[in-house]
Amino acid sequence: MKTTIIGLGLIGGSLAKDLRKSHFATEIIGVESNPEHASQAVELGLVDRIEPLEEAVKNTDLVIIAIPVDKEIEILPLILDNIGSGTTVADMSSTKREIIQSVKDHKRRRNFVPAHPMSGTENSGPTAALEELFRDKITIICDHSESGPQHLALIEKMFQSLGMDIAYMSADEQDHSTAYVSHLPHAAAFALANAVQDKADRSIIFDLASGGFRSTVRLAKSSSTMWHPIFQQNRKYVVESLDVYIRHLQEFRDCLYNNEDDKLRDLILNANKIRSILEGENPHLIKNEEKLVKLYTK
Amino acid sequence: MKTTIIGLGLIGGSLAKDLRKSHFATEIIGVESNPEHASQAVELGLVDRIEPLEEAVKNTDLVIIAIPVDKEIEILPLILDNIGSGTTVADMSSTKREIIQSVKDHKRRRNFVPAHPMSGTENSGPTAALEELFRDKITIICDHSESGPQHLALIEKMFQSLGMDIAYMSADEQDHSTAYVSHLPHAAAFALANAVQDKADRSIIFDLASGGFRSTVRLAKSSSTMWHPIFQQNRKYVVESLDVYIRHLQEFRDCLYNNEDDKLRDLILNANKIRSILEGENPHLIKNEEKLVKLYTK
Repeated sequence: MKTTIIGLGLIGGSLAKDLRKSHFATEIIGVESNPEHASQAVELGLVDRIEPLEEAVKNTDLVIIAIPVDKEIEILPLILDNIGSGTTVADMSSTKREIIQSVKDHKRRRNFVPAHPMSGTENSGPTAALEELFRDKITIICDHSESGPQHLALIEKMFQSLGMDIAYMSADEQDHSTAYVSHLPHAAAFALANAVQDKADRSIIFDLASGGFRSTVRLAKSSSTMWHPIFQQNRKYVVESLDVYIRHLQEFRDCLYNNEDDKLRDLILNANKIRSILEGENPHLIKNEEKLVKLYTK
Repeated sequence: MKTTIIGLGLIGGSLAKDLRKSHFATEIIGVESNPEHASQAVELGLVDRIEPLEEAVKNTDLVIIAIPVDKEIEILPLILDNIGSGTTVADMSSTKREIIQSVKDHKRRRNFVPAHPMSGTENSGPTAALEELFRDKITIICDHSESGPQHLALIEKMFQSLGMDIAYMSADEQDHSTAYVSHLPHAAAFALANAVQDKADRSIIFDLASGGFRSTVRLAKSSSTMWHPIFQQNRKYVVESLDVYIRHLQEFRDCLYNNEDDKLRDLILNANKIRSILEGENPHLIKNEEKLVKLYTK
């Protein structure tokens, strides 16, 4: 399948590696505004060639958009303007409401499958691309009844080829849930990195940073180019989640300050429950095979 | 060397593995108040036998204390009461001021070397013990001029045998710095786990938890038995660090809420500097070999 990937960073580049390896993509065209990243992507063999956007989306089977959400919202209408009637378009981005809203009346809206694979690292650019980045992770597909069945089926098959399970939800549910499990942890890590730099000198941080500190601030290394627009597009829910988080931190701080030891212990024990949630079995998970069966028999 | 380890959890158990492997310890006596952990430690070969506390600290060369800080502060004077004049005692705990204060006038104070290896995982108990847990990590030694030179040298040699570098600081500096790089990240993770559980159901958290979320809340799995007393003993500095963190989070939240986009981007870019701090080279690090040379020639 001829596949065009727009944005050859961590996500686009990793996708290129896996789709080529599984032969899901037989020809990969790249679109990349950063000339250095464009050369690297060709040198690394992520794509067969680089083309300008409008040329690259014409006469292709599949277009994958993997660029920062502020750039995506600018060019998504242009992409839909230029594709043929049979071309499927999917995106990989972390916010969905505003993006879907921007093309809701477009005549090719049903060619578009809004998606969000929950996978990444704190690194960016084509050299950060990893094989198997998506395996055993979850992808969200939003408002799936608004996509044409053949386009939805193709994207489901693509995620299946990557080894992903699929969660279906509305764009609003995705933006709300993702605020808590992804955007808030990033904001928390950015603020933690700033707080620690505010109070401890570089030498002390370097000397004493243990594995625990490193894992908690890991996300604070994440690219501003990617994250700033995510926070802007999901402002409503990220602000809500920050308010909830600050309230919980303040409660923890006040318990400690006031020697409310029983309550403090209860707060820690409640937090500990995250272990059983993260390590448990979830009966509600829709495995992509079951879902595909459901889809094909409906 | 005959070595007594008090507390056979993650830290005591991991230490037993490495000290035995390197032949630093030729005989290891364990003290463990939890009967299940005591049996596990013997079955796993972490210790040669279990003895009651008073018996185990008499006629031994080295006593290592690796128990929660509230328990340590209870039994440290008793340990010093019962050791011989040549026995060295070190602890491995995360707070230092109150512990050192509790034995400042003890006649065996100079036998005691207060230490804090900056290494651990979110797991606990003898089955969580890992080989090489300490390799290439930093350990703090506090108020080292208050320990007898032969006791200090022995503990430095022990940490060197574990592959650790040593940072020397006062108990107050250690409690202050550790509040920021260890206690605050734990408190932040506990509050984040509570905030997310407050707003998202188990199924959503399980489905959508990406690597980023998992790494940010990993510390929220940590044992209440260990962490509650750490927060209590270091209340002053942990409250201070939480106040600083809440202020930075509130600033981030307000920038986002008020569309102060330039400032929000600057906050993210400042947070990104943590990468160069954590991945850089630190000229101030005192390698334990250099320090030992210094010590032996002074």
